[in-house]
Amino acid sequence: MTWVEDEAFTPDQPFGPQTLPYGVIDGQIAVRLGDQAMPLRPIASSFGDLAEIVSADSLNPLLAAGRETWTELRARLIELTSASAAPRGASLVPLDGAVLPFAVADYVDFYSSKYHAENAGKIFRPNDSPLLPNWTHLPVGYHGRAGTVVVSGTPIVRPHGQQRGPAFGPSQRLDIEAEVGFVCGGPVVGRVSTSAAADHVFGVVLVNDWSARDIQGWESQPLGPFLGKSFATSISAWVTPLDAFSAARVHTPPRTHPVQDYLVEDQPWGLDLLLQIDWNGTIVSRPRFADMFYSFAQQLAHMTVNGATVRPGDLFASGTVSGPTREQLGCFLEMSWGGRDKITLSGGDQRTFLEDHDTVRITATAPGPNGSVVGLAEVAGTVSPAS
Amino acid sequence: MTWVEDEAFTPDQPFGPQTLPYGVIDGQIAVRLGDQAMPLRPIASSFGDLAEIVSADSLNPLLAAGRETWTELRARLIELTSASAAPRGASLVPLDGAVLPFAVADYVDFYSSKYHAENAGKIFRPNDSPLLPNWTHLPVGYHGRAGTVVVSGTPIVRPHGQQRGPAFGPSQRLDIEAEVGFVCGGPVVGRVSTSAAADHVFGVVLVNDWSARDIQGWESQPLGPFLGKSFATSISAWVTPLDAFSAARVHTPPRTHPVQDYLVEDQPWGLDLLLQIDWNGTIVSRPRFADMFYSFAQQLAHMTVNGATVRPGDLFASGTVSGPTREQLGCFLEMSWGGRDKITLSGGDQRTFLEDHDTVRITATAPGPNGSVVGLAEVAGTVSPAS
Repeated sequence: MTWVEDEAFTPDQPFGPQTLPYGVIDGQIAVRLGDQAMPLRPIASSFGDLAEIVSADSLNPLLAAGRETWTELRARLIELTSASAAPRGASLVPLDGAVLPFAVADYVDFYSSKYHAENAGKIFRPNDSPLLPNWTHLPVGYHGRAGTVVVSGTPIVRPHGQQRGPAFGPSQRLDIEAEVGFVCGGPVVGRVSTSAAADHVFGVVLVNDWSARDIQGWESQPLGPFLGKSFATSISAWVTPLDAFSAARVHTPPRTHPVQDYLVEDQPWGLDLLLQIDWNGTIVSRPRFADMFYSFAQQLAHMTVNGATVRPGDLFASGTVSGPTREQLGCFLEMSWGGRDKITLSGGDQRTFLEDHDTVRITATAPGPNGSVVGLAEVAGTVSPAS
Repeated sequence: MTWVEDEAFTPDQPFGPQTLPYGVIDGQIAVRLGDQAMPLRPIASSFGDLAEIVSADSLNPLLAAGRETWTELRARLIELTSASAAPRGASLVPLDGAVLPFAVADYVDFYSSKYHAENAGKIFRPNDSPLLPNWTHLPVGYHGRAGTVVVSGTPIVRPHGQQRGPAFGPSQRLDIEAEVGFVCGGPVVGRVSTSAAADHVFGVVLVNDWSARDIQGWESQPLGPFLGKSFATSISAWVTPLDAFSAARVHTPPRTHPVQDYLVEDQPWGLDLLLQIDWNGTIVSRPRFADMFYSFAQQLAHMTVNGATVRPGDLFASGTVSGPTREQLGCFLEMSWGGRDKITLSGGDQRTFLEDHDTVRITATAPGPNGSVVGLAEVAGTVSPAS
């Protein structure tokens, strides 16, 4: 028996001893143990050389420290949390009040679900081929706004903006995008090969890339989405280390033609995550991340192949995770087919896009070692009326 | 006579006492006086309450301090540099070695020259209307990569990337974009009205938004430019305060229809800057910034109208500054009309896009008070061969 007294700190639970995600609570780095968290600063002396890094007020110094430190810290935490006695000074605190765990450097959003890209193509360009010619050759992506990345639980104020007409007012087509995000660290370098991805990816979060479809639709040509996305992007409060996903690695789906050399992988970097989207208490979708056409290793190799550096705190998101069936779609644009079809919630409420006071929670789990389950912390948000 | 012994520190020179741009050199904030710079840390006690801010190793604390501090500091600097005796401890140092003067938070690139947008439309979409329907209603823009914004003088390595075919290799269509950039500061807030722009814009730089047209052309649909831009964006080493441009304010050009309320200005926020583009010693263009269709106040109001916050260190660039004539174009894509026409440099060299070892320098001046001239520090870069 370990000293950690928390019913959810067991291998069959998503935040058991196999997961150990990092966050920031009360101005301190903490590790999530079940449904509680252990602040690290009071027990910093248990970490030897890493005492300063674990005593910081955000994950950024840890992100900068690199792969060797990440592995060493995790090994030490496994030791400490599986011991029969608590380290001197250790305490468990509630999860409330966790803040954004790191300062986001650059935020890049990809578009790597073939099902999502095809559906978006069919909805927005019904007379064209749904996939554009570049899509199967490279992971299409664009830069988002780092300064408006917020922690799970932050209220999402319905944005104003210009819309077709042109008109101006609160968005009437406020949507979600259920995505998986990768948190970067290690030295500042350009051209990260797919085989070096693990040296630059510290961990994984869930992302809700809130999207105002009416604003996006009017502004996006020819330079891409801007205000339709930049009002808010929510991420999990807890970053699950990449190391926790050793049993969840899968190959990306088969391709009709080979990718270019710099996108070839020498090991499978897909992840067998099952996402769940809860809208006001109704599970409306269960997308599988294993369906994504490009892995995070390929996204990172692509993002840096032009020499662009990757920095600690860079965040890149997968793009909306959608699968082949109605029950596996990652946004309401697809579920409602551009607003045409109603989505029925339990209790009979009907929706196309988000109404004020609606709440969306996205969660995900993956297979862990020895039959355990590894969790990504939820990303949740409630819509506030336009101000 | 002032104590500043520098031939270029006169009102008829761009970096005379009417300009006083800020930079960072030898790990200290410095003010440019003619062709030298005065570090502020050794004379910090001359600034009273502002001693800590002027002693920082980057402009970020000054950016965060806000408009009142900016005005106060500038007034004090005008006093100190116009005195007959130097403040105790003051020294003048060479300009070499100036580094990126602030940590860039979010970088947004606009597209606010009508001539540039029309030319790009004609070149890329010859069978369509050159301007898309949204262009005259809102300042189209997108997020760029903050982590690869570099200081003037940084070598620009020719980027590799995917191109149409698809093929892969060093860009063969490496281009510039001559732009004007605005450096943000003040409190972190959303919805900045046009009338509050001066509270959030600290100063002005020149920007060269290096662009690999072949990479950009293949990747950009449907989400906009990404790797074709993200390898490097150069900015001036010295930030000219907005306050220096009081005599350069002009109205934006006439419009065919009124803009929406949130884009209306209560005073003219256009700037009468004359840019000059020097390619290996030949002046190839002289674009006028007064030709821009949207002002920086309108760009800032648009960027935040959805509630997105603006942070100290945010940088937004105007978009390529092009005018109506061949001698006023802001990029080689336009000058060579998509690579069709040769550009002849002095000595007879011919170009369409950049060759290895080419150097581009962009400079700009504006009318200052009482017949003086206010300068923006050059943004220069030399192309290194692909690595």
